[in-house]
Amino acid sequence: MTVTPHDRDAVTFSPPAGVARCAVLGTGLIGGSVAASLGALGIEVVGWDRDERCVARALELGVVGSVAASLGEAVAGADVVFVAVPVGATAEVAIAALDAEPGSVVTDVGSVKGAVVDAVEAARPGAAGRFVGGHPMAGSEQDGVDGSRADLFAGATWVLTPTEGTDATAFATLRSLVAAFGAEAIALSPHDHDVFVATMSHVPQLASSVLMDTALGVSARHGTLLRLAAGGFRDMTRIAAGNASIWPDILTANRDAVLASFDRYLAELAEVRAMVAAGDRVGLLAMLQRARQGRRSLPIGAASAGPLVELRVLVPDRPGVLSEITTLAGRLSVNVFDLEFAHSLEGDRGVMVLVVSDTEASVEYEVGLRDLGYPVTRGKLE
Amino acid sequence: MTVTPHDRDAVTFSPPAGVARCAVLGTGLIGGSVAASLGALGIEVVGWDRDERCVARALELGVVGSVAASLGEAVAGADVVFVAVPVGATAEVAIAALDAEPGSVVTDVGSVKGAVVDAVEAARPGAAGRFVGGHPMAGSEQDGVDGSRADLFAGATWVLTPTEGTDATAFATLRSLVAAFGAEAIALSPHDHDVFVATMSHVPQLASSVLMDTALGVSARHGTLLRLAAGGFRDMTRIAAGNASIWPDILTANRDAVLASFDRYLAELAEVRAMVAAGDRVGLLAMLQRARQGRRSLPIGAASAGPLVELRVLVPDRPGVLSEITTLAGRLSVNVFDLEFAHSLEGDRGVMVLVVSDTEASVEYEVGLRDLGYPVTRGKLE
Repeated sequence: MTVTPHDRDAVTFSPPAGVARCAVLGTGLIGGSVAASLGALGIEVVGWDRDERCVARALELGVVGSVAASLGEAVAGADVVFVAVPVGATAEVAIAALDAEPGSVVTDVGSVKGAVVDAVEAARPGAAGRFVGGHPMAGSEQDGVDGSRADLFAGATWVLTPTEGTDATAFATLRSLVAAFGAEAIALSPHDHDVFVATMSHVPQLASSVLMDTALGVSARHGTLLRLAAGGFRDMTRIAAGNASIWPDILTANRDAVLASFDRYLAELAEVRAMVAAGDRVGLLAMLQRARQGRRSLPIGAASAGPLVELRVLVPDRPGVLSEITTLAGRLSVNVFDLEFAHSLEGDRGVMVLVVSDTEASVEYEVGLRDLGYPVTRGKLE
Repeated sequence: MTVTPHDRDAVTFSPPAGVARCAVLGTGLIGGSVAASLGALGIEVVGWDRDERCVARALELGVVGSVAASLGEAVAGADVVFVAVPVGATAEVAIAALDAEPGSVVTDVGSVKGAVVDAVEAARPGAAGRFVGGHPMAGSEQDGVDGSRADLFAGATWVLTPTEGTDATAFATLRSLVAAFGAEAIALSPHDHDVFVATMSHVPQLASSVLMDTALGVSARHGTLLRLAAGGFRDMTRIAAGNASIWPDILTANRDAVLASFDRYLAELAEVRAMVAAGDRVGLLAMLQRARQGRRSLPIGAASAGPLVELRVLVPDRPGVLSEITTLAGRLSVNVFDLEFAHSLEGDRGVMVLVVSDTEASVEYEVGLRDLGYPVTRGKLE
């Protein structure tokens, strides 16, 4: 499938060929929303959850088409399996799904990737090519299946974490499915993903909850404190109101990256504390202005399409290529709108066709691909 | 003026008697919004700013009725003067206003109160009774007079900080004016105010800016980081996009309270960091759940009126009484809807009439007033 701008919308919002039936294991907020998104594309969805009441509620709400009595029953005949259980149980459930349905592509939706991907690859080196770690960067303050929405992922970023062993077809199937949900798929290595979410999500969560908790301590001594909460404090503590029970697992699973990011935060806070103590207005202003500039430059939502360019990359037909090429795009912030992997007739070489935004970053990307030893040809899409 | 529920709306949204002309010194976002709010009440507003272009723009936008060439000209004949200059210049400008118009009530809108109130009282012990510190807890990401809005304070909390020396009539005038802007006036001691804003505003500002700055540091090493910014990170860094230049002054003026609050925040962050390192899921969950509960209990906006009760407090006619009685209400979270101070014919005693919400806190308040030695009578308003 080669994509031109004419049929890009059709490709983005219809299900990929060969995906007729999916299993969703774990039907909480995210699992329920994945199920609803699949259902909206006309795909058959079988739900399973350790908590029978939860999956029964999902059926009642119409987010799954049917309920399976066991994990094995759920994944039998599934083209794609979404594992949406708590982070601590993800690897175990993903391995069970790989074992139970050898024809399936398996992915997960957890907030931590390194530990899960490593565990699956270590346990099932032969089958791990069919597993691709995933993380939709979307959520809601509401917990549980009742908050499920078919449009939860529209406009969200959905990280996929292919590795050297990832099967290219499995990756392409998931990429298309995620795009059909309206999300922007980007590929990162599991390690890069974990560093990013530690900095952009896990440490901010702790910073928010501790800020709220500190205010409660002061409030206990001065009754009126919380009535003075203005908009800024409300903004900063909004995520502290979210589901607390998911975090101990996530923080434990991503401990190394969280501690590294936490230590950077603490070190800079200590510097700023010293500036306040010393009355260092110049230092304070410099930090505040740097942050202001950074916040104002924060991209809003997914990148719009704009002009596109097609990069055709000649690659050896072996594992590792996919991960190398897609994660370089992620690192350089190159938006990949479509991706096709065409095996050559000879069987030892192939062409990977990438449709990307025609920006300066895409030129950097082209150079980067050449530096990695891949011949690249470039053509504007009309 | 004794208030019954029938005319409460009229009292709240019309200007207090005896306020026909006001001066606004400093016409940035807050000064401009004060001017616009005064104008909307039909009060004559004279503007002055050290930066002539700024006040000229305020005139062009119609937020001030006229522009004065000097501070003295602006305050001549003014019933109330609002000082809305940067925190570092507030005391000096307030003192100049007290000197220039002996008939005026002077207030300010700065984020720090102790340093300003102390400086005015030390410099002008005779006139400081006419000065009441103030702080509207409202703002906007937008800087400057162009962001001015007559409804900026509607529903906001506006702290007033009377002290022992505060003149009761001056306080009552300001209280009515603030209520006429649609804000909820609460009285706190300057020190309590400063502790509160350190915890609810100043430290959160630093926590937000440092979070953004830390992410920039990681982003410089990994190009794609900022594209992954989800809603939680956006919420937590929203205030980092605000006006940076006001903060070095505020942080310096409120240094002691900021350092105390900052140290509480850092100490709890360090505890939580140790929990992550130790994999202490129980400790993490307890903190996160406490914060979640606290955030969910955060009052939304100003308290609604509900049933009211009138407390009549017999007080000696001397300074200090006002501050003692109003700041006790603030500390106990008692919402004072109206306040009147009636001097008795004999001249040495008076009656303070307070209209407050008929809640458990108002009973505590009544008991507290008796403990302070004031006879109180209570009557429901029908």
